[in-house]
Amino acid sequence: MALIVQKYGGTSVGSVERIEHVAQKVIQYRNQGHEVVVVVSAMSGETNRLIALAKQAQSEPDPRELDVLIATGEQVTIALLCMAIKQRGQDARSYTGAQVRILTDSAFNKARIVKIDEEHMRADLAAGRIVVVAGFQGMDEHRNITTLGRGGSDTTAVALAAALKADECQIYTDVDGVYTTDPRVVPEARRLERITFEEMLEMASLGSKVLQIRSVEFAGKYNVPLRVLSSFQEGNGTLITYEVEGMEEPLISGIAFNQDEAKLTIQGVPDQPGVAYRILGPIGESNIEVDMIIQNVAADGLTTDFTFTVHRNDYDKALRLLQQVAETLGAKSVSGDTKIAKISLVGVGMRSHAGIASTMFKTLADEGINIRMISTSEIKISVVVDEKYQELAVRALHSAFELEKDPNNK
Amino acid sequence: MALIVQKYGGTSVGSVERIEHVAQKVIQYRNQGHEVVVVVSAMSGETNRLIALAKQAQSEPDPRELDVLIATGEQVTIALLCMAIKQRGQDARSYTGAQVRILTDSAFNKARIVKIDEEHMRADLAAGRIVVVAGFQGMDEHRNITTLGRGGSDTTAVALAAALKADECQIYTDVDGVYTTDPRVVPEARRLERITFEEMLEMASLGSKVLQIRSVEFAGKYNVPLRVLSSFQEGNGTLITYEVEGMEEPLISGIAFNQDEAKLTIQGVPDQPGVAYRILGPIGESNIEVDMIIQNVAADGLTTDFTFTVHRNDYDKALRLLQQVAETLGAKSVSGDTKIAKISLVGVGMRSHAGIASTMFKTLADEGINIRMISTSEIKISVVVDEKYQELAVRALHSAFELEKDPNNK
Repeated sequence: MALIVQKYGGTSVGSVERIEHVAQKVIQYRNQGHEVVVVVSAMSGETNRLIALAKQAQSEPDPRELDVLIATGEQVTIALLCMAIKQRGQDARSYTGAQVRILTDSAFNKARIVKIDEEHMRADLAAGRIVVVAGFQGMDEHRNITTLGRGGSDTTAVALAAALKADECQIYTDVDGVYTTDPRVVPEARRLERITFEEMLEMASLGSKVLQIRSVEFAGKYNVPLRVLSSFQEGNGTLITYEVEGMEEPLISGIAFNQDEAKLTIQGVPDQPGVAYRILGPIGESNIEVDMIIQNVAADGLTTDFTFTVHRNDYDKALRLLQQVAETLGAKSVSGDTKIAKISLVGVGMRSHAGIASTMFKTLADEGINIRMISTSEIKISVVVDEKYQELAVRALHSAFELEKDPNNK
Repeated sequence: MALIVQKYGGTSVGSVERIEHVAQKVIQYRNQGHEVVVVVSAMSGETNRLIALAKQAQSEPDPRELDVLIATGEQVTIALLCMAIKQRGQDARSYTGAQVRILTDSAFNKARIVKIDEEHMRADLAAGRIVVVAGFQGMDEHRNITTLGRGGSDTTAVALAAALKADECQIYTDVDGVYTTDPRVVPEARRLERITFEEMLEMASLGSKVLQIRSVEFAGKYNVPLRVLSSFQEGNGTLITYEVEGMEEPLISGIAFNQDEAKLTIQGVPDQPGVAYRILGPIGESNIEVDMIIQNVAADGLTTDFTFTVHRNDYDKALRLLQQVAETLGAKSVSGDTKIAKISLVGVGMRSHAGIASTMFKTLADEGINIRMISTSEIKISVVVDEKYQELAVRALHSAFELEKDPNNK
């Protein structure tokens, strides 16, 4: 008998029929003798409907009142799911975030969980009940309703699993696991049986939108085994855990890619201490997040070229700021490019293997793809290429590293 | 400067446009220097939508979960109203029933208020904020969400007014006050400037559906001046208060009527002690409410006829029970009639005036209307007539007692 926390997203509870399907799945687990805590999102479309109402009422909706409003979305789902479970003869009890209670800070719309009282849930589990909790929400110390921000239901599930010391936290989505890369780009992409937290963080932040980054961080921090599964198909999904000693790690777990970023370069900057700060300081102060940063000494040995990437939405703003900086610093020129793609190989296995980078660069060269930027960490290598080469690069790399093959049967 | 509690029902907050209109009205009062607490219902249609979802999920929705579900209706409205108020430059803060907190017993779907914490609201009012509270809901001592049952938002408003010792509790509806009778039947019906709690209770329970009975009882008990107004038109509405010493009371305040009841008669019952109990006991045990009761000694002096009215929905059930009782008692026969109307004259003024009843009976006789049952209390006289005579009777009585004329200008 295990204690399992399950989370079902908006699509999985998008109608009463789907909620009934979730009720059946939950009861299956319960009937196998497990203790089950279920976290649910708002029915798909509901949060957007409420936000639209809010914007009609106030041009910039008040953050506190917005949380009061959208917290109703999950409250509807928990009640309906409990009813559907009871209709099928099992006992269940619903909890809003405030009722649990999930104590958060007071940062409306993006609150962070501070503490969770598990005693009520434990009592219900001990009495044989299925516990159903509203995801995405909590309350602060002044009894204000708060929300964790979009996608925060994953975080609720992981936090509950940590508080309850659950054996597994299962995240049900509309995909059946984490793949070596996006199957829409590489049809041979393979579902991973398992992946480490670190790899998952790199995959997630690089564009594989299966799980919310914060929930993975949280799960890693509290060592909660996390499993991604499909609510619509049977299967084991992908288990996200810490590396197990002696486990044979595949060299590369997956390839992430995105076209969310734009690249900016400032050329001919006098090469002197503090120059990076003087360039990136104004960018950071404007709340623009910088991803990759590369600095090269120029041919003359006196000036340097400095390149970085930002989100495409911030490109225009960042370019204006950089032009001001260039004037102040007496730099030669400023240039930029929004038509780029970033492609990353991710794998804890590459830590102990040389030659990954050179295989990657050779593969891209063989396809005639020019690399614009390179950055590396212990478990990933990222390159920036022209946007138009993205699919070609991903397919070539997937094949070169034989990711379609199960590493245990290679 | 006064402290005013205002309540807006579902139609008054049926869309964001209407909520904006409410925001304007509330701000008007605030700008006149009043402290304002606003109680709102769910947007019209919302509660029914949620109940339909519940019935899809569970054939007989679990009472606890049903309250979790439908309490979201008012929660949406409070948030939107606060936003609309803030959009117009005034400060406001919303409270769910649980947040206030409005402590109730644990009778889900029909909870009763036990206690109200006013300290948070007082602090907000002192800070110049408009306080917006979700009607119809509360929480029990175990943090369960409860609802007061349909129409309970009126009760919330009155209870808050009592707790805050408000100067007036204003109930905004889609009618502009309490009328001498239904204007759809008598176009000359006149809006009453004021009416007493007792009269209002008689009017409400007899079919003038302006206010929830419970809220009037509550207001009377705590002596909260209650005013019914229209959210769509300007005007003073009708003030409901205790009789003021020396106030010139009109003879009759109004005429209530309904066709909700059915009449049952058991004939030829042996006239012996305890017979009323033996007849009505089984009815009461089946949770059927009895309204009018009349017992006559029959011509033979040995047996009695016994007539009473029940709600039409309970008629078939009551008839079956009565037939069993008749057999046990050896009564002669059982008969019934569903095609009846009950018409009541209501007025505290009739306490000190003789002749009201005879004027009433004469008026009906002049119109050829046969009276089937009569019952009287200190401030009302009710008659049962054939359903088809209802409108004629109401019009004739309205005219006979000159209710279309303002008693102060007669």
